[in-house]
Amino acid sequence: MVADYCSSIFPHLTFLATAAESVAESAEADSSLVLAGVLLSLVVIYFASKLGGEICARINLPTVLGELVGGVIIGVSAMHLLIFPGSGIDASASQIMQLLQGTTSLSPAELQATFSAQSEVISTLAEIGVVILLFEIGLESDLKELIRVGVQAGVVAIVGVTVPFGLGTAGLMWLFHIPAIPAIFAGAALTATSIGITAKVLAELQQLSSREGQIIIGAAVLDDVLGIIVLAVVGGLVKTGEVEIINVVYLVLSAAAFLIGGIWLGRLLSPFVVSLIDNLKTRGSLLLVSLGMAFVLSYVAVAIQLEAILGSFVAGLILAETAKRGELDEQIKPIADMLVPVFFVVVGARTDVSVLNPFNPANHEGLIIAAFLVAVALLGKVVTGFAVFGQPGINRWAIGIGMIPRGEVGLVFAAYGATTGALSPALQAAVIVMVILTTFVAPPMLRVAFSKGDAVPEVAGSES
Amino acid sequence: MVADYCSSIFPHLTFLATAAESVAESAEADSSLVLAGVLLSLVVIYFASKLGGEICARINLPTVLGELVGGVIIGVSAMHLLIFPGSGIDASASQIMQLLQGTTSLSPAELQATFSAQSEVISTLAEIGVVILLFEIGLESDLKELIRVGVQAGVVAIVGVTVPFGLGTAGLMWLFHIPAIPAIFAGAALTATSIGITAKVLAELQQLSSREGQIIIGAAVLDDVLGIIVLAVVGGLVKTGEVEIINVVYLVLSAAAFLIGGIWLGRLLSPFVVSLIDNLKTRGSLLLVSLGMAFVLSYVAVAIQLEAILGSFVAGLILAETAKRGELDEQIKPIADMLVPVFFVVVGARTDVSVLNPFNPANHEGLIIAAFLVAVALLGKVVTGFAVFGQPGINRWAIGIGMIPRGEVGLVFAAYGATTGALSPALQAAVIVMVILTTFVAPPMLRVAFSKGDAVPEVAGSES
Repeated sequence: MVADYCSSIFPHLTFLATAAESVAESAEADSSLVLAGVLLSLVVIYFASKLGGEICARINLPTVLGELVGGVIIGVSAMHLLIFPGSGIDASASQIMQLLQGTTSLSPAELQATFSAQSEVISTLAEIGVVILLFEIGLESDLKELIRVGVQAGVVAIVGVTVPFGLGTAGLMWLFHIPAIPAIFAGAALTATSIGITAKVLAELQQLSSREGQIIIGAAVLDDVLGIIVLAVVGGLVKTGEVEIINVVYLVLSAAAFLIGGIWLGRLLSPFVVSLIDNLKTRGSLLLVSLGMAFVLSYVAVAIQLEAILGSFVAGLILAETAKRGELDEQIKPIADMLVPVFFVVVGARTDVSVLNPFNPANHEGLIIAAFLVAVALLGKVVTGFAVFGQPGINRWAIGIGMIPRGEVGLVFAAYGATTGALSPALQAAVIVMVILTTFVAPPMLRVAFSKGDAVPEVAGSES
Repeated sequence: MVADYCSSIFPHLTFLATAAESVAESAEADSSLVLAGVLLSLVVIYFASKLGGEICARINLPTVLGELVGGVIIGVSAMHLLIFPGSGIDASASQIMQLLQGTTSLSPAELQATFSAQSEVISTLAEIGVVILLFEIGLESDLKELIRVGVQAGVVAIVGVTVPFGLGTAGLMWLFHIPAIPAIFAGAALTATSIGITAKVLAELQQLSSREGQIIIGAAVLDDVLGIIVLAVVGGLVKTGEVEIINVVYLVLSAAAFLIGGIWLGRLLSPFVVSLIDNLKTRGSLLLVSLGMAFVLSYVAVAIQLEAILGSFVAGLILAETAKRGELDEQIKPIADMLVPVFFVVVGARTDVSVLNPFNPANHEGLIIAAFLVAVALLGKVVTGFAVFGQPGINRWAIGIGMIPRGEVGLVFAAYGATTGALSPALQAAVIVMVILTTFVAPPMLRVAFSKGDAVPEVAGSES
């Protein structure tokens, strides 16, 4: 009992703990080395994010692009400083693990255990980072404005899902003679916008609370939900040959109940939460109660098969309506500064850009299909801006371009398609290339669109 | 490749990712469920820390005591909400894992993988929490004052190590007729102060920058290093029957080089770091550069077999001397508020207080020895305050009591003694009881000592 008890609360005394553990039966990773590996990974992540971000800031590109590229450079595509376990990758491929082994002398088995534990921690920190990002985005959003632009956001979301899906599937079938199921699958991969990347760029451009920004955020949230539903439909189609109506209805209802019910209940309860916070005497009460609320809603979102980020976004929206908004926003900023770069750098680090190499003949078929998918992915989202009605003078280009970055859902499609055999290797590579290009191309385009745009000025009440 | 690529960057789509993974060969934990488990654990931790902290704040006890007790209540001793893998403990014992299984339907193997990944993440967050705490303590300390009270701190540290060690070993041999090696081992477990708990209580009492506070912090840091050296000596004695001089010399030299060299080099380089920060344009630069520095020093400390917290403390001390101190202190506070409670609640949750049960006859022998060890542990540290010279009017009781809480090192001794067979079960239980009691008793005593003390007023320059 004591050995387990100690080895992880009291990780500091490395060599002693190691000695104690090697005597004991445990073959687990030494927690002080896991901590050392995590700290070293964070240092590398911060260095890459700052270097990439600063270069981009100086040449007038969004810093998030620099963080992504910084991640690519330290990741699996190039320097192998930050890599994650996966097919064929073990601790010996990680430069950080090599350094750790050089400075501490671990056995191969201990090294592998430390590598996998460290990767697990960094992955989870990245995920907590995007949860915090969406909490901050929710906190800086304006629920009333979101509801006011709700119809427009809905139109943008629906157009932005159906056009790329329809064009993509039809083009793959007619131009490339790909059978229906893989074509539908790849078409579906074109649908969902990456809310994280878009929101980060909007925040950097200080366009989060503009009318365009709120339409984009609202549409991206709905898009996310639609993407989950499309994947459920297409996934059922691949598995059983038919659409699982009950599952789809369940998802639609639970998503609606979560978004509407969550906001309604949150607004109802938020006065009690605020008065609770006011009655607490200890340090950090506002922050911990708010984070607790965000994490509970994130958990509920995962439990009903939605995404954790939807939960934290809803929590942010609710708290944005309280008197605590300004104070909380101040407190959440350093936490976001610490954790959000982890997310973007990890996304970059995991991206294997070798599928983009045109000199490798094996990539040719995929790259040709990819060129088509990228064109559809760009076009299918840009048109959404022109579907907005009743908003004279709105920056339609900015809205359309804001919906371009794919990411999350597109890659889940690629993974699911690959494992079920629905996507050929070339088609799978094409989907990955599409995700990479839309993700990396949209941030600078969005900056241009806003800079020359006829943006509606920031709505009142957005700063508190 | 894609499956691995996706399953962890894009953890959001739970059931899809699960489906994709169950098709693929992977048997790893689904990262979105790990995230859900981590978020739920954090909610429980925050709830326990606030409930315990608020109750303690209202009855005029230090909040950190409430956080520890809150941890005990949700942990392995009582509610089993937050538990960690160990001998005989698997996922089925964790109430959080049961809830996760109830809401998501996992196979037993997946549940076990999720449980161990989640525990790894929470343990590492707790460790990052104490790293951040010591960084904050360093940032709020005054290096010049620490150097000024250095001799006094050294006297306090040396007296506080030798008196409990000598009294404890002698008493165990003569009063309880325990053989020399176990007696030396248990005596050594009485030596090192828990810097985390003492520093947190000092911060709560706003005594961190008082002369007493700085002596306690300086002595606790030296104590920590002395504890590591004592364990190396005693550990070698147990293993080989003789003292490994070279190892001891290595530790002494590397600790001195790290503390003196780190501070010297840091002071030399800090103007460049500050001007670097001033030239960065992106958000969060001050925070990330500072954290990077803290994490690098923490890594170096682990690599040379010291503790990570020494590295972050040194980084805080160095940055406290720059013009960025105030701004950085503001930014580090919310991060500390988010992560430090995880450390204290996890310490409480891992503590099995069943060894304290007097109605269990198996505990009797251990409890009798424990009563003796506790008396020595209290006395041996209280006398240190009276060893301070040349500081008229100083609050000697506060200094002595501030050194009382054990923790880290004491429990590593217990673990090491148990796994090497140097400590009998009764003696091992007695050491654990000593650690628990000194940890839980010292915070309220310290508050009393400062409230009725003749404390020297806060030194100038401590607020910036």
